[in-house]
Order: sequence, then C-alpha cells, then structure tokens
Amino acid sequence: MDDLTRDAFLGGLVQLLQPRVGYRAGVDPVLLAASVPAQAGQSVLDLGCGVGAAALCLGARIAGLSLTGVEMQAEYAQLAARNGGGRLEVVVADLNDLPADLRERQFDHVMANPPYFDRKAGLSGQNAAREAALGEATPLAVWIKVAAKRVKPKGQVHFIHRAERIPQILEALPDHMGSIEILPISPRIGRAAELVILRARKNGRAAFKLHAPLILHEGARHLRDGDSYAPRIKAILRDGTALDF
Amino acid sequence: MDDLTRDAFLGGLVQLLQPRVGYRAGVDPVLLAASVPAQAGQSVLDLGCGVGAAALCLGARIAGLSLTGVEMQAEYAQLAARNGGGRLEVVVADLNDLPADLRERQFDHVMANPPYFDRKAGLSGQNAAREAALGEATPLAVWIKVAAKRVKPKGQVHFIHRAERIPQILEALPDHMGSIEILPISPRIGRAAELVILRARKNGRAAFKLHAPLILHEGARHLRDGDSYAPRIKAILRDGTALDF
Repeated sequence: MDDLTRDAFLGGLVQLLQPRVGYRAGVDPVLLAASVPAQAGQSVLDLGCGVGAAALCLGARIAGLSLTGVEMQAEYAQLAARNGGGRLEVVVADLNDLPADLRERQFDHVMANPPYFDRKAGLSGQNAAREAALGEATPLAVWIKVAAKRVKPKGQVHFIHRAERIPQILEALPDHMGSIEILPISPRIGRAAELVILRARKNGRAAFKLHAPLILHEGARHLRDGDSYAPRIKAILRDGTALDF
Repeated sequence: MDDLTRDAFLGGLVQLLQPRVGYRAGVDPVLLAASVPAQAGQSVLDLGCGVGAAALCLGARIAGLSLTGVEMQAEYAQLAARNGGGRLEVVVADLNDLPADLRERQFDHVMANPPYFDRKAGLSGQNAAREAALGEATPLAVWIKVAAKRVKPKGQVHFIHRAERIPQILEALPDHMGSIEILPISPRIGRAAELVILRARKNGRAAFKLHAPLILHEGARHLRDGDSYAPRIKAILRDGTALDF
C-alpha cells in the first residue's frame, strides 16, 4: 500500500492519508461523526475505523475525547494510527475476536460505518482490501452485538448503513438497547432513503423515533455536475458542524 | 349504540354510519385503503374493520373486489354490514379465535388499521368500545401474524400504525413476509413521522425500502385553523385517488 493520497476533510481540519486504490473514506463517516453527541472527557470506540475518518472528524469537532478504533486490516490500521498522530488509539483486531483488554472496556459512545456493497461503487473485485471493506466479511449482526457490548450503560451507539438493512439492524439490536432513532438520508427531496443513521441507547426506554429525512442534494433532480450539496450538508462537511437530530 | 352520525368519505362517495361517541374513523383508514394496489376480481380482508371505513373506501376506488371484514365488537360489525349494503362480508370474531371457515381462506390482500392509543385523542376511559379500539386488547404481534397467515402466497399485507411501533411490527413479521416497504407519514415537512404505512409481500424477496415521507399538511408550521391538507392528501381524501408508492 505505497500509493497514498492525502485528502482534506472538514474544510482541511482533518487530513487523511488513504490508499489511492481500494476503500476510500467519503461522506458517510463524516456524517456518522457529526451525529454523535459526545462531550469532552468521554470515550469513543469506532468499530472498523478504516484510516480513522469518523474518529478523527469527531475528535476535530469535540475536544477532549478519548478515541479508540478497531480495524481488522493492518494496512488501514497503520494509516489510522499515522493519521491520528497519537490522538487515536488503534487496535488491529477482528470484531469476532477482540483482544481481552478491549473486551474488558466499555465506552461512552460506540460508532460504526460497517462496510456495505455500494451499487454505485462499481466493485471491481480486483482489490482484496476493497472487497473486504465493501463486502461483508463480518456479518452485520456481529457489528451490532459487539457495539452493544462495548458501550456503557446509558451510552449510545451510532451506525450509518444502507436503508435496506434497517430490518436486520433492528433485529440484531439486543433488547437492552432502546431509545432507538432512525435518521433517513435521501439523495434528494421526495426520493427514498439510501442511507440511514441509527442511534440507540443502552437501557434507553424512549419510544422509537423515525425522523424527517436528511436531504443531501438541492433540487428534485440532478441538473448539473459538481457541487449541489444542501446548505446543512455543506456545513457538516466543510465547517464540521454537528448533525443534530 | 343508538346515537349515530352519517359521515361522508371520499367526497361523499362513501357514507358511513358510526357512533357519535367512541372510536370514529378518520383519515387513517382512508390512507390505508388508498395504499392497497388491489385489482378487480381480487379478494381483500380487513382485520378490525370497525364500521367498514377502509374496506368500503377501497371498494369505492376499485370496482369488482370481494371484500371481507373481521370485527370483534358486535356493534361496529353490525354498522359495517349496514354501511356495506351487501358489498362487505362482515365476520364478528376475535383475531385470536377466528372461525374455522375463515381460517381456511386466504386473500389477495390483507389490510389493518390496528387500534392504538392516540395521544391526541384524549382518551376519557368512559367508553368501553372506545377503550377497546384505542387500547390494545389484542397484541400488535397477533394482528401481524394473522394477516401473514390469511394472505395468499405473493399477496400483500398493508398496515397503518404509529411510527414508534415500527420495530415491533418488523419483529413480528414472519420470515416469509418480504419486499417490505415503509411509507412514513409526517404532519408537516421536516417533522418526524407520526404514522407509517407498512407493506409486505408473502414470499417477496425485494430489498427493504424506506420511502420519502408523505406530508399531510402544507407549511412548516400550523398557521391557521381549518383545512391545510397538502394537495396530494386532498386528492386522496376527497377524490379517492390512490396513494402510490
């Protein structure tokens, strides 16, 4: 993995080295990080942290967090540690087989952007790392159950995933995870959700809530190439504002 | 139940006698009926049909349907039969204990507007029929399982219910019910969904789909009393158009 790019996130506040070929962090981990209402002094675990995009974006928005990432692929884990510059503890591990010391820790927040096959990504099948990231080597239910175990009582988990996986995510959530909220993310107004952010609280007791969708792009149709992000999305991606819901 | 009103639905196309006091059909069964893509010659079962609002609105929109309703409360069942005027077969039965002949039949479509405690309804607790309708004498999971049993292979079920019950509905749906779609129904743009219509197909294999919300009222806030329904909603309620999704 010699061929790297350095990419700017949050208007340059976060700089990430990532492989030119293979899975590359895009908008999704930035939206995930923006949705976590962490507070200074809290601990955050990012499952499948990749090169550290979500964890480092969250750390850039909220000072004083203790950030830990778990990444199965050593090359990505090394880049995450390098990108973090000491601000991100990186553990190279499979979610099915976390090291004993991590299995004894719990975090105020756990977040994950589990890999999914993105139809738009045009998976070539020629890059093993990309395949592992876009395919689902680890079943989605494992991500959910590990997150639920590693979050403290009253702590929150946040996932971003494809909307079509909502039933499986809800089914996999243990009964002690409550106060579930879903934020649909639609490409344009009037269109079905393609992604969702799902939030749940350990021992939460509030009713399930289905929020109004977050709309990524302005206009009902794609009228021109280039930037068409809605103002709220631009503020999240460029200015590092929170995604409150 | 002597004190009845006669109320017009679908711009007067459907006239329903219903009790002045107690559970009264409103917008929900009309939206439910509008969402069912039945075709002439098909059979439809309405679980908990009340005075027949959903079944008779569906029958008014699509000619040539065979309509059957099940209603536990005899007074409502009698009104449904009277409102139907022979177009609606009404079975007085508890969903937990359907008569043998009904248990041997399957339908092209099954729909239900299961009772739910509506916070806005200001339940007085003084009317037993209304309590049974607004409370949940029959667990939601029973409604789902009976619907799944009584629908033909490849047939569809449609439910309208409060959005906060989405996890329980999905959990109760048997594995052979697939091609699940959720249409969120929000009071105004930008507001969380209060209701949802959930559709599933027996033996369906399509991915889960979360549609863009149906918005009931125009404007971001309540500005005046009286009619503020969005044009699409007006067309459904007054002109009997379909709710396509």
